[in-house]
Amino acid sequence: MSGSLVVVGTGPGRPELMTPATLAALARASDLVGYGPYLERVPNLRPGQRRHASDNRVELDRARLALSLAAEGREVAVVSGGDPGVFAMAAAVFEAVEQGDPGWRTLDIRIEPGVTAMLAAAAEVGAPLGGDFCAISLSDNLKSWATIERRLGAAADGDFVIALYNPASRARPHQLGKALDVLRARKKPDTPVLFVRAAGTADAQVAVETLATAKEGQADMRTLVIVGASTTRRVGRWVYTPRSERGAPS
Amino acid sequence: MSGSLVVVGTGPGRPELMTPATLAALARASDLVGYGPYLERVPNLRPGQRRHASDNRVELDRARLALSLAAEGREVAVVSGGDPGVFAMAAAVFEAVEQGDPGWRTLDIRIEPGVTAMLAAAAEVGAPLGGDFCAISLSDNLKSWATIERRLGAAADGDFVIALYNPASRARPHQLGKALDVLRARKKPDTPVLFVRAAGTADAQVAVETLATAKEGQADMRTLVIVGASTTRRVGRWVYTPRSERGAPS
Repeated sequence: MSGSLVVVGTGPGRPELMTPATLAALARASDLVGYGPYLERVPNLRPGQRRHASDNRVELDRARLALSLAAEGREVAVVSGGDPGVFAMAAAVFEAVEQGDPGWRTLDIRIEPGVTAMLAAAAEVGAPLGGDFCAISLSDNLKSWATIERRLGAAADGDFVIALYNPASRARPHQLGKALDVLRARKKPDTPVLFVRAAGTADAQVAVETLATAKEGQADMRTLVIVGASTTRRVGRWVYTPRSERGAPS
Repeated sequence: MSGSLVVVGTGPGRPELMTPATLAALARASDLVGYGPYLERVPNLRPGQRRHASDNRVELDRARLALSLAAEGREVAVVSGGDPGVFAMAAAVFEAVEQGDPGWRTLDIRIEPGVTAMLAAAAEVGAPLGGDFCAISLSDNLKSWATIERRLGAAADGDFVIALYNPASRARPHQLGKALDVLRARKKPDTPVLFVRAAGTADAQVAVETLATAKEGQADMRTLVIVGASTTRRVGRWVYTPRSERGAPS
């Protein structure tokens, strides 16, 4: 099969946070496939370039469309936000490859890394990911809530900083509250909890709370939540996690 | 205090993986502070720009120098590789702020996010970070080995994909072997283990092993190691973790 497929991430939002490698991959593509709002971020880069916008709920269908176009010889870019390998389209593409036409395994498929949301969120508040950390998606569309609770518990047991992706949506308004309760049972009440909305955009907003004061209603679909480790702390107007488990070395 | 300090990451290596926002921050700076090899990646962007190169072992001294320069009114950029907030200079800067001159807390300090090594490493092999994941540094310069073992155990208990930063150095040749032994005691022998060297550069090399076959000697200072979750698998020449805990949904 002669076509190609590249999966890219446009970063957290500001065009200045999209890598030049991603911009070049988008400019080369004959076809762009992606969720509508992500495609809208991509400027017109090549005359005649076709755009295939879809709904957010159909990642696997979108991946199959992209693979079919590549199999026809097109040069396809699948467009995610953030980094395409973190809770985004790259995994869906390989799921579709695994289940689909065996010929798809011979396609030229590449992934271009990008700036994922937790990095932009961390940068807005200081350096909360300065120690070991975990990333957990609270969406239970594709995994059970029991698995999510198990991972939250393990992350607390390991005293990791915890980045929570997809903390809330209209269909799942109460999962962040349940997740915070799991963490409250295992971590100190004064553990910092950061709500970073629209990180890496001109509209970024930060709220610094603790496990005692955080409320699930503070997060929406555009929010990334970071729960600190035992050492995460404020300094001045910033929040950071020292590299040392004992706090800042002298 | 009138100066400013921005902490940036040059990404994994290829200039095309450095964000335009980072390049712009570097171009504005009057002074660049960083580990020599990272500074060498930065082109000459502004006449008269001063460069302060240092050894890799003295992050806190480097942070203090940068803060002192900013306090003198200079526009300082602290240069890391990857993302500055992930096992890099941002946390060291805030450690120095916490311990240092109280006036430093009033400085204009910003962090520019970048592409961290595990994202570039994942992109080289497919989508191994497609599910929930952890990032752990194996360096015990600043934390105890007991803490590292505790975190490895918790990450295995949570069935996270595990990205291991700093898996080996000349001073620490056996820590990856010890870490793999901790994981072997808790995870299946056929769990994929990915060694990705020089990810995001023209020299990138990938070795796909399993917990049964992986050897500590396969990693050096430029290697990022990714240990799969129970669902991480090969498809064609790629390795990925499906979004679902049950494997690929249909």
